[in-house]
Amino acid sequence: MQRPASGFSEHLLGISQSEQLSNCADIIKDNIFLIQSLDTIDSTKVVFITFAPTMQFQVVKVDPQSKARTGKLITDHGEIPTPIFMPVGTAGSVKAVHQRELKEDINAKIILGNTYHLYLRPGLDVLEKAGGLHKFNGWDLPILTDSGGYQVYSLGANRKITEEGVIFKSHIDGSKHTFTPEGVMDIERTIGADIIMAFDECTPYPCEYEYARKSMHLTHRWLKRCVDRVNNTEPKYGYTQALFPIVQGSVYRDLREESAEFIANQQQMGNAIGGLSVGEPHEMMYEMTDLVCRILPADKPRYLMGVGTPENILECIALGIDMFDCVMPTRNARNGMLFTSEGIINIRNEKWKDDLSPIDPAIGGYASTFYSKAYLRHLIISKEILGAQIASIHNLTFYLWLVSQARKQIEEGTFTDWKNKMVKIVTTRL
Amino acid sequence: MQRPASGFSEHLLGISQSEQLSNCADIIKDNIFLIQSLDTIDSTKVVFITFAPTMQFQVVKVDPQSKARTGKLITDHGEIPTPIFMPVGTAGSVKAVHQRELKEDINAKIILGNTYHLYLRPGLDVLEKAGGLHKFNGWDLPILTDSGGYQVYSLGANRKITEEGVIFKSHIDGSKHTFTPEGVMDIERTIGADIIMAFDECTPYPCEYEYARKSMHLTHRWLKRCVDRVNNTEPKYGYTQALFPIVQGSVYRDLREESAEFIANQQQMGNAIGGLSVGEPHEMMYEMTDLVCRILPADKPRYLMGVGTPENILECIALGIDMFDCVMPTRNARNGMLFTSEGIINIRNEKWKDDLSPIDPAIGGYASTFYSKAYLRHLIISKEILGAQIASIHNLTFYLWLVSQARKQIEEGTFTDWKNKMVKIVTTRL
Repeated sequence: MQRPASGFSEHLLGISQSEQLSNCADIIKDNIFLIQSLDTIDSTKVVFITFAPTMQFQVVKVDPQSKARTGKLITDHGEIPTPIFMPVGTAGSVKAVHQRELKEDINAKIILGNTYHLYLRPGLDVLEKAGGLHKFNGWDLPILTDSGGYQVYSLGANRKITEEGVIFKSHIDGSKHTFTPEGVMDIERTIGADIIMAFDECTPYPCEYEYARKSMHLTHRWLKRCVDRVNNTEPKYGYTQALFPIVQGSVYRDLREESAEFIANQQQMGNAIGGLSVGEPHEMMYEMTDLVCRILPADKPRYLMGVGTPENILECIALGIDMFDCVMPTRNARNGMLFTSEGIINIRNEKWKDDLSPIDPAIGGYASTFYSKAYLRHLIISKEILGAQIASIHNLTFYLWLVSQARKQIEEGTFTDWKNKMVKIVTTRL
Repeated sequence: MQRPASGFSEHLLGISQSEQLSNCADIIKDNIFLIQSLDTIDSTKVVFITFAPTMQFQVVKVDPQSKARTGKLITDHGEIPTPIFMPVGTAGSVKAVHQRELKEDINAKIILGNTYHLYLRPGLDVLEKAGGLHKFNGWDLPILTDSGGYQVYSLGANRKITEEGVIFKSHIDGSKHTFTPEGVMDIERTIGADIIMAFDECTPYPCEYEYARKSMHLTHRWLKRCVDRVNNTEPKYGYTQALFPIVQGSVYRDLREESAEFIANQQQMGNAIGGLSVGEPHEMMYEMTDLVCRILPADKPRYLMGVGTPENILECIALGIDMFDCVMPTRNARNGMLFTSEGIINIRNEKWKDDLSPIDPAIGGYASTFYSKAYLRHLIISKEILGAQIASIHNLTFYLWLVSQARKQIEEGTFTDWKNKMVKIVTTRL
C-alpha cells in the first residue's frame, strides 16, 4: 500500500513552488521517518514516495518459563522496545521533569497525555494550532492518550453517565461538558497521540456483578462507536494513530473472558486491560491479567493501564504484558518515596541525613548519580522544588531501568529467575 | 608567598604512604587549580609547591563615559567575569533549577547560599561531614554566603539585637539561637563559601537618622570582630575564603560616606553595599550607590546586595558595581513574570495563549529556545511544576545574558549608549 502521507499533500497544495520547496525542507526534517524513498529534489519537481505509515508490532523473544516476551512497537514517532513503562504527562508535562531529561536521562520511549486535562487546558484550539501535542510540548517521540474516561468517572457527583456518553462538570471552573465516544475520538485526533485509547467506563473496586456486567456491555457498545469514528476520520497531522480498545469486567472471570474475546475480535493494532489496580488485592489483579492475556492475541501489544509498583510490573511482564503506565513513580517521588535498585527508600527518614552516597549509581542518569541521598533528603524536608525534580527523575529512571533489565533478561532466557530475585529486592524497605 | 595549601597538610598527616598517595590523587583532582608546580610523584615522595591561593581581582576595561568596568575575580573555584549576576540558592538550591542547568544553560559563574537557612537546614554537622556546601550540593564553581543578618532581622518580633549579637527564634520550629559576629564567621567557615559576608545589621526603609547612625556603628564594631575572627581561623577545606565587609548608613549621605570610608579602610579583598533596595525610590538607591562607589577602592570588586531589576542592574553597573544578587528572577518566574531581551512578559495574559514562538531565542539556552510561550503559559496557568522550572531557568538565563552583554559593550567602549537603549527595552511591558 503506497500513498503520499496526508501531511505532505496538505502542505503542497495551493502554495508557490519556492514556498513548496521551503516547506518541503521543514517537512523532510519533521517527517524524515516517514520517507522510504526520496526520488528527486530540484527546483521544479519534488516527489515523495512513502509507504503508508501504519503501526507495527513484532515479538522478538519469548521467555521459556513464563509468558514474558520482548518486542518492538514501531510508530511514526519512533520505535518502542517492549516491555516498556510510560511516564504520565497528565497536562502535557511529566510533572517536574524536562522533556530533555525524559529523553536523555530517563530513556523514556513513549509518554502519556490525559485527554480530560488537555481538553480543558490548554484546549483543543491551542493544540490544533500547534499541530498536535508533540509540537506543543516538544516531545517528538511517541505519545499515548487515555480517553478521559478514568478522570471523568473520578469526578463522582459531578458527572452523569448515559448511553450517549458522559456529562460532567470541569474540576477547574465547574463548566459543563459532554464526552461521547465519537467526540472523544475527535478530541484524540486533535491531540494527535500515536496511540489513542477507546472511551470506556472504568468500574471501581469493589463493584457489584450486575453493575460490572452492564458497564462492560456499555463499554463494548461505546467501543463499536469509537472504531467507527476512527475508521471514518483521518489523522490531522500526517502520521498514524492506532486505536487501542480496553478490556473491562471488574474482578469477575466470566466477564473478563467475555470482554477479552470481544476486544480481541475488534482486530485493532493493540489491546489494553482497564479497571485493574483500582484497590483490589494484587493476587486478584494478577489472576485477571493472566486470564485476559491468554485470550488477547499474542501478536499484538498488551497494555495494562495504571499499573503499578515495580513488583506489579515484574509480575505482569511474566503474564505477557508489554506496556505499563502509572503516576506512582512521580507522585511518590514528590513525597520522598524512592524506588531504587536496592529497595525502597523513604528519603525523609533521619537515617539518610548524612548519607553522602549517590542516590542510585547502578541505574545511571544524571539525577541518580550526581546528587547524594543527604542532599535530596535536605531538599525534600525543606520543600525545595528541586527535591521533587530530582526524586521524580530518579524514580522514572529506575522504572525505565527496571523494564530495560527485564528485556535483557528475557533476551537472555533468564527472566524468571531474575524476576523472582528482583521482586524481593524491589519490595525491601531500606 | 609560598606555602602548602592547608588542605594538603591536613590530609598528609598521620596516614600511611599508600593512603597518602591515594588521597593525593583525590586532592590533585579536587584542587588542580591550586597547584602551580608539581615537582615529583613517586612511591616515596610527594612534593607540592603551591602559591597561596588568595583571591585576586583585576580590572580589565573601564567605560569612557561612565564608571562601568569589566574585571576578573579569581577564586579557588574558578574565575568570575564581572559585572556578574549571582543566582540565589537560599537553602543550597537555586529554586527549581538543576546544578547542571545553572552551569550549562544559564552560564552562572557563582551562586549564593543563605547562612541562616543553611545553618537551620541541613545544619552544620551535615555540611561539615560533606566537606562544605560545594561538595554537599555538587556546585563546584564559586559560592558566596550572606551572613544571615538580613533573614534574622526579617523575623521581626522573633529576634532581639544586643551589642553581643542577635537572639532569634527559628521560623521552622521556634527553637532559640544566637548569632554573634564570631559565631557567624565560624558558621561561614563551615559552609565553606569562597566569599563570606560580614555580619551586619540591615536597616529597613524608612529609617530614622538616629537609628541608622547607631545601627551603622554597631555594624562597624561587629565588622572588627568578624575581621579578627577570620584572621584568627583557617578555612576548613583547603581553599581560600575572602571576607567582604558591608557599607550601611540607610539613605543618609553623611552616614554612607562615613561607612564607606570605614569599610574601605578594612582593606579586605572586596566590598559590599547593603541596606539598599529595601523599598526606597530607585533614584535614592542610585544616589547612595554612586556616592559609595566613589569612596570604595577601584581595584577591588564592589557588590550591591539584593539588587535588582534588569534596569537597576544596568544603572548600577554604570555607577561602578561589579556584583549583584537578587531573588527577583526566580521568585517572579514562579508567578509567570518573564524578563526577556524584548521586554517584560506576564505569561499568564491571554495574549500568549497561542503564541507558539520560543520564549526568547535571542538569549540562547535550552529553556528559552526549546519551549514556546504558549506551552509555558499553559504550564503556569495549570500550576505545573515544569512551568516554574522553565520560567526560572529562562529568567536567570536572561539575567546572565544581560550582564554578559554589558561586559561586551564595556569591552567595546559602547556601554553607555547601549545601556540607555537597553533600559528602555527591559522596562517595556509586552
